[in-house]
Amino acid sequence: MNVHTKPNSIKQAPDSVTTGPIIGSRKVYAAPMSHPAMRVPFREIALSDPAEAPVRVYDTSGPYTESDAAIDLKAGLPQLREAWVVARGAAPITPRAVRPEDNGNASGDRLVAPCPAARIIRRAPQGKLITQLEFARAGIITEEMVFVAHRENLAREAALAGAAERLADGDSFGASIPDFVTPEFVRAEVARGRAIIPANINHTELEPMAIGRNFLVKINGNIGNSAVTSGAAEEVEKMVWATRWGADTVMDLSTGRNIHNIRSWILRNAPVPIGTVPIYQALEKVGGDPIALTWEVFKDTLVEQAEQGVDYFTIHAGVRLPYVPLTANRVTGIVSRGGSIMARWCLAHHKESFLYERFEEICDICRAYDVSFSLGDGLRPGSIADANDRAQFAELETLGELTKIAWAKGCQVMIEGPGHVPMHKIKINMDKQLEECGEAPFYTLGPLTTDIAPGYDHITSGIGAAMIGWFGCAMLCYVTPKEHLGLPDRDDVKTGVITYKIAAHAADLAKGHPAAKLRDDALSRARFDFRWEDQFNLALDPDTARAFHDETLPKEAHKVAHFCSMCGPKFCSMKITQDLRAEVLAMGANERAALDQAAAAIETQRAAGMAEKSREFLETGGKLYVPAG
Amino acid sequence: MNVHTKPNSIKQAPDSVTTGPIIGSRKVYAAPMSHPAMRVPFREIALSDPAEAPVRVYDTSGPYTESDAAIDLKAGLPQLREAWVVARGAAPITPRAVRPEDNGNASGDRLVAPCPAARIIRRAPQGKLITQLEFARAGIITEEMVFVAHRENLAREAALAGAAERLADGDSFGASIPDFVTPEFVRAEVARGRAIIPANINHTELEPMAIGRNFLVKINGNIGNSAVTSGAAEEVEKMVWATRWGADTVMDLSTGRNIHNIRSWILRNAPVPIGTVPIYQALEKVGGDPIALTWEVFKDTLVEQAEQGVDYFTIHAGVRLPYVPLTANRVTGIVSRGGSIMARWCLAHHKESFLYERFEEICDICRAYDVSFSLGDGLRPGSIADANDRAQFAELETLGELTKIAWAKGCQVMIEGPGHVPMHKIKINMDKQLEECGEAPFYTLGPLTTDIAPGYDHITSGIGAAMIGWFGCAMLCYVTPKEHLGLPDRDDVKTGVITYKIAAHAADLAKGHPAAKLRDDALSRARFDFRWEDQFNLALDPDTARAFHDETLPKEAHKVAHFCSMCGPKFCSMKITQDLRAEVLAMGANERAALDQAAAAIETQRAAGMAEKSREFLETGGKLYVPAG
Repeated sequence: MNVHTKPNSIKQAPDSVTTGPIIGSRKVYAAPMSHPAMRVPFREIALSDPAEAPVRVYDTSGPYTESDAAIDLKAGLPQLREAWVVARGAAPITPRAVRPEDNGNASGDRLVAPCPAARIIRRAPQGKLITQLEFARAGIITEEMVFVAHRENLAREAALAGAAERLADGDSFGASIPDFVTPEFVRAEVARGRAIIPANINHTELEPMAIGRNFLVKINGNIGNSAVTSGAAEEVEKMVWATRWGADTVMDLSTGRNIHNIRSWILRNAPVPIGTVPIYQALEKVGGDPIALTWEVFKDTLVEQAEQGVDYFTIHAGVRLPYVPLTANRVTGIVSRGGSIMARWCLAHHKESFLYERFEEICDICRAYDVSFSLGDGLRPGSIADANDRAQFAELETLGELTKIAWAKGCQVMIEGPGHVPMHKIKINMDKQLEECGEAPFYTLGPLTTDIAPGYDHITSGIGAAMIGWFGCAMLCYVTPKEHLGLPDRDDVKTGVITYKIAAHAADLAKGHPAAKLRDDALSRARFDFRWEDQFNLALDPDTARAFHDETLPKEAHKVAHFCSMCGPKFCSMKITQDLRAEVLAMGANERAALDQAAAAIETQRAAGMAEKSREFLETGGKLYVPAG
Repeated sequence: MNVHTKPNSIKQAPDSVTTGPIIGSRKVYAAPMSHPAMRVPFREIALSDPAEAPVRVYDTSGPYTESDAAIDLKAGLPQLREAWVVARGAAPITPRAVRPEDNGNASGDRLVAPCPAARIIRRAPQGKLITQLEFARAGIITEEMVFVAHRENLAREAALAGAAERLADGDSFGASIPDFVTPEFVRAEVARGRAIIPANINHTELEPMAIGRNFLVKINGNIGNSAVTSGAAEEVEKMVWATRWGADTVMDLSTGRNIHNIRSWILRNAPVPIGTVPIYQALEKVGGDPIALTWEVFKDTLVEQAEQGVDYFTIHAGVRLPYVPLTANRVTGIVSRGGSIMARWCLAHHKESFLYERFEEICDICRAYDVSFSLGDGLRPGSIADANDRAQFAELETLGELTKIAWAKGCQVMIEGPGHVPMHKIKINMDKQLEECGEAPFYTLGPLTTDIAPGYDHITSGIGAAMIGWFGCAMLCYVTPKEHLGLPDRDDVKTGVITYKIAAHAADLAKGHPAAKLRDDALSRARFDFRWEDQFNLALDPDTARAFHDETLPKEAHKVAHFCSMCGPKFCSMKITQDLRAEVLAMGANERAALDQAAAAIETQRAAGMAEKSREFLETGGKLYVPAG
């Protein structure tokens, strides 16, 4: 193969990553009253107007954004959850030994060294509760649930205390979003399978978070090298970079060599849940030939990754042998890598998928470490033409069946979704998932609402993501501008994350999340008051907002100017309307009463006119337009 | 004022613009059978697979994308419509003389020379039909209607002829999209006010197009200098550049000096309808003070611009005096420039708006040149907090009233809409517009679905634009990444246009436009077949798609490679699934029958299971989750 590879990119081990606060923000930690030692992370944006309270926002970035961050990638992040896990009785085990094939038999210069951070590996002992779902069902509120509740609330108690009415007015399509999230609410949602807290007992560095339709909509960022490009340092930086801008979870989709060791760097330094697709590594172990895959190799890979601390596994157990022919006449066949690998295996052996047949065994492995399922949509549509077809929905029905099995086994489950879906088919898809999978969280890639814009698929999919998030999807997997064209670099990762933060936030607003609007309102007030710095700092990406403004008005004085380069000083509507507001508010009582009277008269006239028009309309036989004079 | 200004940017007159075909495409002209001399423009994308017909797409770019384009900006574009207009009896007049204040009293070095292209100025004589609406009502099909019908059909007859079933399956929310657009259909839509063909009789260079909910969703790109930045050459290039990428109309929002002369360059060289907001120029003529505005100055400006050939005017006649206090408690007051100017005037004089009171006179002027109305939404919400409030809807009701008056006067009308609207309020807004304005085309700015992403407002608004386009909005006004921060440059214009082409196309797909899916399917087939060049060429932006691909796989050989840098050669799902398809299609009859039988068995089992589950569900009292074992 003559493939373009960056020199030395394979063997590169990470030594530094991006640190320091987002400009205009301060990392803060707060504790729920019940757990004064708990450090729940937030980001606080101070505003220049003394009348404006600082805005507290959800923060996924881990210690990297502390102002005095002392990061040692070789030591890994602090083990926030270790005491909790130990107290529940998770027992140290002798871990599976790392084998050369775990790293694709890389050796010498081509082998990335593993992250040297020392960790005790644990597993659930017989007869002990271990997963968040098991605790939840037993009525036990874990520390993770307390953490999640505090995190989801932001500062909403304080902010909403003064509000005369409920701020939110959305349509949640049957979700049950509470005004305040209590630990008991989190427990109840996890217990009924409507939310998950992906948190492997071996990923003790994790800051717990929840995925479910009654929580803030989450986003995932994909990273990972391929046989063609990029190494460990780049991937760790992408993980830190993605969480800096708001990725709630990160999937490591690495293929090629060094998978095991790259993942060790990522996991030991990740403040967010890490997901993987174990079949990718299993395939590497059998030399890349799908037909050579075996249950034993796959099972071994699950144990390997579970012991490392992976928080959720994509398992394509819904790709059943009889569904494969359903894809033969598709425009784009099977576009899921895992799906195509399993379909190939099934057809070549003419056997039912071992993932499907061994699903209960897979559950037992996942349960022992509390690895959550992300049931893969191996038959998702890869084009508008294939959306919501029989292959896709047959698999979704099977995923519903598997969800019930996983629940019965005590495992946490979410369900992956498409893909490419035109707007009018998105709600149908969402509703079917809720019904088939008993409201287990849906986790979709986009969906892309058209196929015709490669290079802009963060946008084609951002549209679909916002909509499906509104309709009930719990987590949105980002799509970067490079989708369909190449591996995303650091800039693409940021663009993907920001686009998906937009989609998730738009969905929260539309669902009527009680606190979502606070940030919009704070930013809009800043905009109206010409507090430019506050506007930038409240933006999802302060750096870009500031840079765009400064392209035409770079001087410091312009940061307080009552105009911008769009309209110039004389033409600014905001300026004019500020004067206007002052004038209206200063009006005499008589003058104001006269105006209000005039407005009322217009309303009355209009009501009469409507009645008249309606009469005319019926008389003229229902013609909608006014004929020519 | 110490404002950052590019040196000499004000006096710069245009001498060249971007020309030549979009890569991989060819400009073609085709004639409807009834009018063999008519040259309706299209862009044709040839594909490398001989089994694939070339894909014909809608083209807004004018002669600039011809392969041997001979463009002379000083002479202007060919006068395509002149003979049509003359044949209808539009009479030459002595135009209003240009006055120094038309160019903000610019002189010497600061004065941009006008475009020297010689044109005969015309106006409707007494008693003659002149507007497209008048002809339509009289049952007359104009050349413009024939042109529009052929243009909207693309090559859909040929492409759909072989299709076994109707390709589209959208939900149009009550629109009436025909399988084929006939000139009579266009006439009927214009006659009932449900579509407009903005086409000033003095803009003879125009390639006619229609805006209406039963046609392809259109997009508008805004250009224009401000007092702070940019000149004529830049604005003409932005117009050509915007139409190259797909802007269906362009609004010139210039303020500051040289407005008249910059507009002359734009109009004489514009193949698309040009819209303006005449109050901007009127305000310049009175020294920038809203209170000094008069009906006489405004009327004079209307005549000035109508004679130049402006195709549609934004008129903020719905901002009535009694509505002004409704905005006083808004988070962002009045964000429309025109709206704030008129509100200021009304309140200062304590008088009803002269635009409202003189609306019939304005109609008479517009009718005489067939300038279409774009009734401005001066009270649109500028933040999520203000969406769908009383001020906005009071104005919308007044715009409905004005629509009926304009129709009675023979004028074509569309209605401008917001702005900032969270997803759950978009359909409410669209439905109200359709009802209040008798299905007159809606033309919205976005809407932005959240306020928190300055720097990315093409995306926050692209989401809202796609949705409102689906729900029935006829034209989407683009928002660029610079919105709220600065004036867009050439790159921003392209990003805005491509984002809005995505939104419009996603809407066409979801509405079930009969031909929209052809391009998605062609691109998806190319993707599945690894015809990389075809995939790039079918993209909305072939240059960016190609560049992104080439970042990691630059060699020519990779353009036919059966993999890309995302997964590398071994892991490509497309490759695996191609092998798979071949295998399924080559299966023996027995083998295939066995699989189909298995699939049928799963269905049967599932149906039985559903019945069982439903019984269990009722018996267990409707609990949704499986209890722990």
